[in-house]
Amino acid sequence: MQKKYVAEAIGTFVLVFGGCGTAVLDAKNVGVLGVSIAFGLTLLTMAYAIGPISGCHINPAVTVGLIVAGRHDKKDLTGYVVAQILGGIVAAGVLYAIANGHDFGYDLKEGLAANGYGDHSPGGYGLLAGLLAEIVLTALLLFVVLGTTDKRAAVGFAGLPIGLALTLIHLVGIPITNTSVNPARSIGPALFVRGWALEQLWLFIVAPIVGAIFGALTYRAIEEAQPKPKAAPAE
Amino acid sequence: MQKKYVAEAIGTFVLVFGGCGTAVLDAKNVGVLGVSIAFGLTLLTMAYAIGPISGCHINPAVTVGLIVAGRHDKKDLTGYVVAQILGGIVAAGVLYAIANGHDFGYDLKEGLAANGYGDHSPGGYGLLAGLLAEIVLTALLLFVVLGTTDKRAAVGFAGLPIGLALTLIHLVGIPITNTSVNPARSIGPALFVRGWALEQLWLFIVAPIVGAIFGALTYRAIEEAQPKPKAAPAE
Amino acid sequence: MQKKYVAEAIGTFVLVFGGCGTAVLDAKNVGVLGVSIAFGLTLLTMAYAIGPISGCHINPAVTVGLIVAGRHDKKDLTGYVVAQILGGIVAAGVLYAIANGHDFGYDLKEGLAANGYGDHSPGGYGLLAGLLAEIVLTALLLFVVLGTTDKRAAVGFAGLPIGLALTLIHLVGIPITNTSVNPARSIGPALFVRGWALEQLWLFIVAPIVGAIFGALTYRAIEEAQPKPKAAPAE
Amino acid sequence: MQKKYVAEAIGTFVLVFGGCGTAVLDAKNVGVLGVSIAFGLTLLTMAYAIGPISGCHINPAVTVGLIVAGRHDKKDLTGYVVAQILGGIVAAGVLYAIANGHDFGYDLKEGLAANGYGDHSPGGYGLLAGLLAEIVLTALLLFVVLGTTDKRAAVGFAGLPIGLALTLIHLVGIPITNTSVNPARSIGPALFVRGWALEQLWLFIVAPIVGAIFGALTYRAIEEAQPKPKAAPAE
Repeated sequence: MQKKYVAEAIGTFVLVFGGCGTAVLDAKNVGVLGVSIAFGLTLLTMAYAIGPISGCHINPAVTVGLIVAGRHDKKDLTGYVVAQILGGIVAAGVLYAIANGHDFGYDLKEGLAANGYGDHSPGGYGLLAGLLAEIVLTALLLFVVLGTTDKRAAVGFAGLPIGLALTLIHLVGIPITNTSVNPARSIGPALFVRGWALEQLWLFIVAPIVGAIFGALTYRAIEEAQPKPKAAPAE
Repeated sequence: MQKKYVAEAIGTFVLVFGGCGTAVLDAKNVGVLGVSIAFGLTLLTMAYAIGPISGCHINPAVTVGLIVAGRHDKKDLTGYVVAQILGGIVAAGVLYAIANGHDFGYDLKEGLAANGYGDHSPGGYGLLAGLLAEIVLTALLLFVVLGTTDKRAAVGFAGLPIGLALTLIHLVGIPITNTSVNPARSIGPALFVRGWALEQLWLFIVAPIVGAIFGALTYRAIEEAQPKPKAAPAE
Repeated sequence: MQKKYVAEAIGTFVLVFGGCGTAVLDAKNVGVLGVSIAFGLTLLTMAYAIGPISGCHINPAVTVGLIVAGRHDKKDLTGYVVAQILGGIVAAGVLYAIANGHDFGYDLKEGLAANGYGDHSPGGYGLLAGLLAEIVLTALLLFVVLGTTDKRAAVGFAGLPIGLALTLIHLVGIPITNTSVNPARSIGPALFVRGWALEQLWLFIVAPIVGAIFGALTYRAIEEAQPKPKAAPAE
Repeated sequence: MQKKYVAEAIGTFVLVFGGCGTAVLDAKNVGVLGVSIAFGLTLLTMAYAIGPISGCHINPAVTVGLIVAGRHDKKDLTGYVVAQILGGIVAAGVLYAIANGHDFGYDLKEGLAANGYGDHSPGGYGLLAGLLAEIVLTALLLFVVLGTTDKRAAVGFAGLPIGLALTLIHLVGIPITNTSVNPARSIGPALFVRGWALEQLWLFIVAPIVGAIFGALTYRAIEEAQPKPKAAPAE
């Protein structure tokens, strides 16, 4: 297996273990703000740790968006997405083992931080609100990813705004759907929670991918026309 | 339409959707601290995402201040301001659609995060306190924008202090006026809330612009005299 | 008056207006965490905004420490310290005007965020605990300032750890003395509160200066011996 | 004594004084989120302040992990670890002196922020959950340290993701063990609390070191094969 796929699996493990882990183990102490900061920091730290290896997508919607925008090789699609989903599943499993461990039982009815709408929306928001929010927020994520990794952007900084964008996205979105914007983040917990989480999972696959494509196309519409390379004779 | 105008509209959309969105949907969970962080992160992330395209003003007061300071071409004034206002209005509309969506009704009497003073100040502060705070805080924003984008400043860093300055500004200002320092951020929600929000809107147009001009002139007074270009014979 | 002195006055204004402002106007909403973040962000944002002009000490203890460490010209001592104190006083005045404005009365018995020990310590800590904490925390601040502005440090980054060190310092110190580590930050509010705040002010002048000298000497003890300049014949 | 050892002692002093200090003095005000931010900022600020001197490990597990990964000279092992432990002990002592000072008595039964499991886990998590969490979270820390200080990483940025990773690690881990991932951070407080804290101390020495080795080996498995140096004739 290629090293970049392993990196994507590890990065997605960290995203789900750190973000959902804070939600499951610590949300009653740190609240939505703490959970939002945790999710942002998973992406921020991994962007610097594995960015040079795989680009640190750690999100199937990001991989799709980058391919649509012409920024990533489409040959990686399957490998990246499979690795991301596996990383998310393992993280959900380790998290469940800790929460359920030895002297402390975790009740999966509480959700293991799975995403939901309607009766399973933290704030009681319905299907349409959830769809709209997931599409807009994933578009925002892709817009930031594409803008900050543009050739014109300052080198080295991209991980900071990209990670912090995920914090912003969770601040807005947690009341609506618990915030996905990432199918791999949704699949892992849903496989453990089962029932309603699997029934509603489609939205957290479809909406992030639609939003990512929308964000990628929007960014492409406003980016500068790439300067044509000077007619380099011997290139 | 020029691409930089589209970028300003999108950036202001993100500022209002992310900042006011956190206030409307999530303030009861994350409090004033969470809302202040959200506003700061909208500006921080957009500074890196669209900074290379439009400069990321996403605020008519910033555009005015930069023109006064001689840092931006005054020909862009109308295009930028119109785009910013449109972006803010669309964001307020999407936010209202989500908050009001399907199974969840949002009562506009709660304000959609509109700015206000007197009876509509979160902490009961009056007109004069609101005016003074908005002027001082917008001056602070311009001062940071001008200082961090000065020729002598370290390249690439500006987006971090500029965004975090907006968090600081909200920490101080939310109890007084819910914090505007940005006419486009105030206009969008006010158009939906109507009534008192429109009646008080003048303050959130006048004070930020006065503050921005004051901040720009203050910075100009202390910046180094620009070194005269060497007498370039054929310039 | 030299421009760098004006910059120091403005920077200290922002530190006191932003930090003490959050404490006075918003502490009941954002708590000690919010106030600590606000103080850190004042220093972080000003470090980038006025760092190139004056070095952004905005704290008499920092100016003393930098002179002791041989990093700043001692001729600036009086000018910097006077400017810093004036900036802090004006900020406390504007803050009082807003808090006391129009429809909202602020009771100075609540302290305008003045520093104190014993009966005026937020957590009831006594004189010796206050002295020890202010000395250790100011030493920490100087240590970070000197380490991050060392010749070997990465260019452009210093403002981030320096500002965030002030957040850390407030997280630890607010329960003890409300955290000073900065005589100019203490003098402004004390002049308005009078009474106990003036009586206890000596500690917040003496301890930060002692701590700053201690921190500066500690850093000098571990910094690399400066490489001697190669015997430059004509230097 | 070598200067880099002094730097490690001072850095670990700051980590324990700042992190455990916030937990002991201020946790009831700032909660788990504030404590997590404080720990992260100790590492972030010290990374920039002493990174150029000693590399800023300030954690025996990090020193072990870096040696295993071939990134640090094993001759430093004893000196670094002794310095780190001493720094942590002095910090716990100063903290106890402040908390116990003059007019304010601190009851060591409350723990001086010592780490624990079972009856001494903040959330009641048992031995196995604590072991698993400490191993996984320390592996994450090493993974971020190695990734962000890789030759391919952007220069100057490493301190930000490394410090913020420690915040993330505390957000997840505080409910389980109060979060160690650092034997020196655990030893200092345990020596003052004695009793249960010393009895449980073995876990916070063994698990972080196991996790660090695991994280180091994992990173090495995915890092790029180092390009062989060109056959340098006289090397």
